[in-house]
Amino acid sequence: MPNIKLIIEYDGGGYFGFQKQPNLPTIQGELERVLNDLVFLESPIYCAGRTDAGVHARGQVVNFKASTRVPINRLPAALNARLPSDIVVKHVEVVPEDFHARKSALKREYGYYIHNASYPPAIGRQYCYHYPLKLDTEAINQSMRLIIGTHDFSSFCRTEEGKSYLREVYEAYCRALDDHQVVIRVVANAFAYMMMRMLCGSLLEVGRGRWSVPYFQEVLQAKDNSLSAAALPPEGLVLEKVYY
Amino acid sequence: MPNIKLIIEYDGGGYFGFQKQPNLPTIQGELERVLNDLVFLESPIYCAGRTDAGVHARGQVVNFKASTRVPINRLPAALNARLPSDIVVKHVEVVPEDFHARKSALKREYGYYIHNASYPPAIGRQYCYHYPLKLDTEAINQSMRLIIGTHDFSSFCRTEEGKSYLREVYEAYCRALDDHQVVIRVVANAFAYMMMRMLCGSLLEVGRGRWSVPYFQEVLQAKDNSLSAAALPPEGLVLEKVYY
Repeated sequence: MPNIKLIIEYDGGGYFGFQKQPNLPTIQGELERVLNDLVFLESPIYCAGRTDAGVHARGQVVNFKASTRVPINRLPAALNARLPSDIVVKHVEVVPEDFHARKSALKREYGYYIHNASYPPAIGRQYCYHYPLKLDTEAINQSMRLIIGTHDFSSFCRTEEGKSYLREVYEAYCRALDDHQVVIRVVANAFAYMMMRMLCGSLLEVGRGRWSVPYFQEVLQAKDNSLSAAALPPEGLVLEKVYY
Repeated sequence: MPNIKLIIEYDGGGYFGFQKQPNLPTIQGELERVLNDLVFLESPIYCAGRTDAGVHARGQVVNFKASTRVPINRLPAALNARLPSDIVVKHVEVVPEDFHARKSALKREYGYYIHNASYPPAIGRQYCYHYPLKLDTEAINQSMRLIIGTHDFSSFCRTEEGKSYLREVYEAYCRALDDHQVVIRVVANAFAYMMMRMLCGSLLEVGRGRWSVPYFQEVLQAKDNSLSAAALPPEGLVLEKVYY
């Protein structure tokens, strides 16, 4: 029974997140529906990162066990012909039996896209957050250097009693893509629930000058999410890549 | 009576082009509707380039004469608050009385965006054309160098008896934006009807190897649009900038 890995891209704007929910459009629900046309699923569909409602992915990874008479290399075209246009299979391969999209993942990379101009965006408005105040990207980068390494991110995620929020961050930086687009990019072993959106909300407080870099560090060290800025909306967030 | 110039961006996907048409959503129609809330229009709304149905603009320029009690620098925010989210005013200024968005324009810049991968795009699919065959961008660039200068573009536009299709091209090149996005960019004094889309369709014939560069030159010199490849669809085309 082959273990099949897919790399998928999606515009999450029309979905209630990756995870299947009864009577609601979800990425997993759509995938399952079209896979059932083509293969006999012998396991659930596992994913590398359960993106929330409205969050996008350019490199989500899923795997499942299935028997199929469709040749593996024809699966992307067959799936894409059946999937709605906002979900695309970019790559397929047969992987070793013990490969698990979530458990085998070593690193995840997320990008948060900000349209930083006085006027809102029209082209691509579905894929960014409009922030009209001028941003000091150097101050944002100074704060982002403080999260590199292993830290408890309790201040920047939705927490539950008894869970660990220790995460290891490998890369974290912000950069201008053109004269008005800014991306905040973080590569970490894993991300806690709402971590990227609460972190980015707090980094914008630094960028606009309301928080100092030392205050950002204080909030990080406090392990208290009541100190975080509000989470940014989902439309700016993209799961870029998963590393194995 | 001030002559007012606006720079506007729009996602043309929901519109039947710039030019006003009865009972159809158009960019001009939307602009006129919201301007009538704020100013007293004393002239038509002129634009630099009448984009077709489905074509986008990042830097369309319009002008009109109007009396207004709204301070000019507050117009963008007031207009953006009333416009649908797919049309945005980026800039406003009062210009000399003889400024005319179309007649005063010296150069226009258009980009045609191609998603060149075996799989279709999900994120940003509204703003590009999916072309799955491998493209030789060097052969495309060799052909594009042949259109620089003044040429009769009758082969690459919809023609009408008695009109001139002489246009002067200042810049023309194709380049990869990342591992799967390619843009074809042309700067010219003016563009004839369907010119960019027929030209790009023909350049893809060169890029895929069905047309040679000398054959492209032959078609250009033939001044016969029955030789052109089919026009590409509107969603890949963006009016980037107008130069005065």
